[in-house]
Amino acid sequence: MQQYQAPLEDMRFLLHEVFQAETFLTSLPGLEDLSAELLDAILEEVAKISGDLLSPLNQIGDRQGCRFEDGSVTTPTGFRDAYRTFAAGGWGALTGHPDYGGQGMPKLLAVLFEEMLFAANSAFALTPILTSGAALALSLHGSESLKRRFLPNLYSGRWTGTMCLTEAHAGTDLGIMKTRAEPRPDGTYRLTGSKIFITAGEHDLTENIIHFVLARLPDSPASAHGLSLFLVPRTLADESAELTERNGVSCGSIEHKMGIHGSPTCVINFDAATGYLVGEENRGLACMFTMMNYERLSMGLQGIGLADRSYQVARDYARERLQGRGPAGPARPEQVADPIIDHPDVRRMLLTMRANILAGRALALYTAGKLDTVKFSSEETQQQSAARLVELLTPVVKAYCTDRGFQDCVTGQQVLGGHGYVSEWGQEQAVRDARIAQIYEGTNGIQALDLMGRKTVRCKAEYFQVLAAEVREYLAAQETQETLAPYVTSLAEACSALESLTHRIVERAAADPAETGAASYGYMEAMGVFLYGYMWIRILCAAGSETASGTYSSAYRDALFKTGRFYFERLMPRLKSLLEEVSAGAGSLMALQADQF
Amino acid sequence: MQQYQAPLEDMRFLLHEVFQAETFLTSLPGLEDLSAELLDAILEEVAKISGDLLSPLNQIGDRQGCRFEDGSVTTPTGFRDAYRTFAAGGWGALTGHPDYGGQGMPKLLAVLFEEMLFAANSAFALTPILTSGAALALSLHGSESLKRRFLPNLYSGRWTGTMCLTEAHAGTDLGIMKTRAEPRPDGTYRLTGSKIFITAGEHDLTENIIHFVLARLPDSPASAHGLSLFLVPRTLADESAELTERNGVSCGSIEHKMGIHGSPTCVINFDAATGYLVGEENRGLACMFTMMNYERLSMGLQGIGLADRSYQVARDYARERLQGRGPAGPARPEQVADPIIDHPDVRRMLLTMRANILAGRALALYTAGKLDTVKFSSEETQQQSAARLVELLTPVVKAYCTDRGFQDCVTGQQVLGGHGYVSEWGQEQAVRDARIAQIYEGTNGIQALDLMGRKTVRCKAEYFQVLAAEVREYLAAQETQETLAPYVTSLAEACSALESLTHRIVERAAADPAETGAASYGYMEAMGVFLYGYMWIRILCAAGSETASGTYSSAYRDALFKTGRFYFERLMPRLKSLLEEVSAGAGSLMALQADQF
Repeated sequence: MQQYQAPLEDMRFLLHEVFQAETFLTSLPGLEDLSAELLDAILEEVAKISGDLLSPLNQIGDRQGCRFEDGSVTTPTGFRDAYRTFAAGGWGALTGHPDYGGQGMPKLLAVLFEEMLFAANSAFALTPILTSGAALALSLHGSESLKRRFLPNLYSGRWTGTMCLTEAHAGTDLGIMKTRAEPRPDGTYRLTGSKIFITAGEHDLTENIIHFVLARLPDSPASAHGLSLFLVPRTLADESAELTERNGVSCGSIEHKMGIHGSPTCVINFDAATGYLVGEENRGLACMFTMMNYERLSMGLQGIGLADRSYQVARDYARERLQGRGPAGPARPEQVADPIIDHPDVRRMLLTMRANILAGRALALYTAGKLDTVKFSSEETQQQSAARLVELLTPVVKAYCTDRGFQDCVTGQQVLGGHGYVSEWGQEQAVRDARIAQIYEGTNGIQALDLMGRKTVRCKAEYFQVLAAEVREYLAAQETQETLAPYVTSLAEACSALESLTHRIVERAAADPAETGAASYGYMEAMGVFLYGYMWIRILCAAGSETASGTYSSAYRDALFKTGRFYFERLMPRLKSLLEEVSAGAGSLMALQADQF
Repeated sequence: MQQYQAPLEDMRFLLHEVFQAETFLTSLPGLEDLSAELLDAILEEVAKISGDLLSPLNQIGDRQGCRFEDGSVTTPTGFRDAYRTFAAGGWGALTGHPDYGGQGMPKLLAVLFEEMLFAANSAFALTPILTSGAALALSLHGSESLKRRFLPNLYSGRWTGTMCLTEAHAGTDLGIMKTRAEPRPDGTYRLTGSKIFITAGEHDLTENIIHFVLARLPDSPASAHGLSLFLVPRTLADESAELTERNGVSCGSIEHKMGIHGSPTCVINFDAATGYLVGEENRGLACMFTMMNYERLSMGLQGIGLADRSYQVARDYARERLQGRGPAGPARPEQVADPIIDHPDVRRMLLTMRANILAGRALALYTAGKLDTVKFSSEETQQQSAARLVELLTPVVKAYCTDRGFQDCVTGQQVLGGHGYVSEWGQEQAVRDARIAQIYEGTNGIQALDLMGRKTVRCKAEYFQVLAAEVREYLAAQETQETLAPYVTSLAEACSALESLTHRIVERAAADPAETGAASYGYMEAMGVFLYGYMWIRILCAAGSETASGTYSSAYRDALFKTGRFYFERLMPRLKSLLEEVSAGAGSLMALQADQF
């Protein structure tokens, strides 16, 4: 299996040329000391651990999987040592709060970090990335005492974190969950219940695991507004963070599943386990959503990272595999056949992947920049508009980037023909590993509904208007290069078409609530196609800029122009159908009785 | 895991109401004795073996996989007994030549038979279905002596057949294969070489395996026109079909792969093995294509069958899984939540699957009917036009039905959320098993190129015109029911749009051969969307007919109308984008140098 090589040139191009990282970040209070050199140095280190430490364990993790025996989980050979090396490098602290041992790095850097981890070894990546999310929720909502006791060890990698929401009968609908928490006189809580699908709920990587658990207090409302968030360590720890006694937490079993075999997916049982309230009572869902939103952006990166890994293999294979002759006759008459990269349809597959990967990565960075503005900026107007964009973009990154990521992995598998279906090359593993990202942290259908309902219909398209205004402002500010004119026109037209569709749905939904759900998926996809187009315009404008031409070869920038052209000619047209599909409304969906399916 | 239940009502509706099977078949010489009752009785028997014999072995086959040891392959527990029961039922003889023990049944029946087998257990289904294909090639091209010796045992299931094309360096490009065949004085040939990806190349189901092998004679041209087809038994047999001695055929290893674990994919080595020429020297590819075309239609059925299996699970789950509330508030206030089938986006997923499955099955039947016309009809004009349609439709059924089938399985997995990702429910297995159908028997990219190049550009769109004329004739002959008018208009417009695109590509390809490959994939998809639309019109016309209303409940026919409406409102619009994508031409694909990817 070919090892993953982090696409550092592409990453630097996006970071510095498209998003002007240094200028942007150093304008934010607390990040004044960051420099392009530091960011690049960190990226290079991450590239090393991804390629040399994590990628070589990717296939072994898939083949061995995790073993469950007597309540314990054994991770695949090499994972334990790799986790220690990873933690010793301080990577668990990258975005952590500086007061508790974190490095306080911006999200703009973290998304590239996470993409590389997911690309190298998704099963491995899940544990530290979930831990960062858990630590974030704790740092924002926990009491000072809880933070002092738990954050440093979550950052250092001595302990890991989990997110315990789902129960056997309650997935999307958290309101009906049954896990109970009863207050004890000492201020702690007694948790009882069973959670399923808990990633890294039990493992042998660290001495302790800190569960973040949603549960219901005795007199709380029987809905999602009656849930509270609790920190429940597998082993209890005293004030100085020394482990004391085993808590009432156990792993009942692990799942056999399609992929991410190296990551244990656990049933976790809480039997009168001691827990600590995080945040206020009955406000658990809001606290958990801090973490969920963080993870949702991360899932998008899993899609992009795996797509890139698959792309690297497909591209190299297509350059070397000799089969048939190019369309204009033998291109390499000295060989028995031409490489398949000469065939137009193979190019279509590779360009589709490449165009999606670059735009997806750009969109993740764009969203991360908005998150950094929300977190670090001192200007309220900027913060507010960035916060609205984060709300709007998060479900799109989660759903659209994972849909494209999965589809790209399927395409990368297809390039190899039969060799893509056998395990040896790793392409089929990428497909299986990417598939989960469309499902967990809220299925993509739920993301689409979040985008359409909470983020659009409920606010009467206010968030969308923030985006449309930004896009139009960006387009107006560019001195358009002649060659980009048709793409700029295409994007401006798409913006108007999407705007008018958005208002139409808001109106319809007022008359019939089924219109929201009926429009949601296609709308999310239309938004994705549009946003990828916006990212491509930004990439192309940057590629044509003077600063880029000093740093990047003309062949590199030329390839960007050609890939961007492909996007606008070959992928952007999808928007037309989506607009028509969504416009058809709820009628045909709601017409059938449940027993007519 | 839920067992597969054959969709007999849907199958009968298509067979009798849409395609008027009895009238059509009994008009063909040799099939005068067929009756609707006989067809139905056979379908019911197939439904039984599918649901009761094969489906229960589906998951066990996936989990155990095949074992390779010392050159032998052990199939999963139960496969051997099931194969004997299957063979004893005479199912291997269904479409076989009556002179050699076959039952001579039409393809119109065989496609439903094959769909059920693939749905119940794709890994199991491959062996008998490949055997039928091999027997077909032999019956059409083999000498009388070879047919007498081998056909009866292939039909009876005493022996199985394989298709040996691919070599490690030669997949799509068969012209560069290296396996050699040297003539011996006794009229047999001596075969030497190694083949890979041989489905059922070695197993423990039967006492013998008959390989159909492409190889090159000593002085043959170094291209695909220099290949000949050979019959190479694993164990030699005398004139009376008694086994004599082991031939120089061995299995080197089996592949670890994404799915169809119950089907061994073998490396088969030929070391001075004795082979018999089938057909003429250097005409092997043509003989093999008899078999390939047969298999390509079958692969489409694998996609449709697995999609239907996945649909059944997803539909039942959606009716029972309680999560959240319907768009208009609690539909079942007495329960903690409403079933997810009340949610518009879940309906979108189920309806997409259902609309594709019905149209795909109809398209397979339509193509099968044309194959029956070619085989049985005595009217030359009819035969000729049917033959052209078979040429045109085969790559579409292979590629579009397997693309939709895979995507439908992914959708069926998505309906179950996290439960779709774990193995227990079988939805993830359907995804993995369906994936191969897009790859083997010529990747879908190759199918698209076949459609666009050989079947369209080369004949200057003549085949397409046969189809367009038939569609227009059909539409003109209908007394359009008022409610269908918009769909009829939509289909007629699609036909004209596709026609004009077709001519445009033919013109462009004359100037630049890269235009063929650049247009191919999108063109195949556009053809698929159009043909599914044509099938839906035929389904809806039949559902509104008097004969159907006497036999099928109004609820059943009403569901068809509503699903058809969904197809035209929600899936047919895809055509617009495809036309635009394809129209963009080869420019953006061919612009990059190979090292710019």
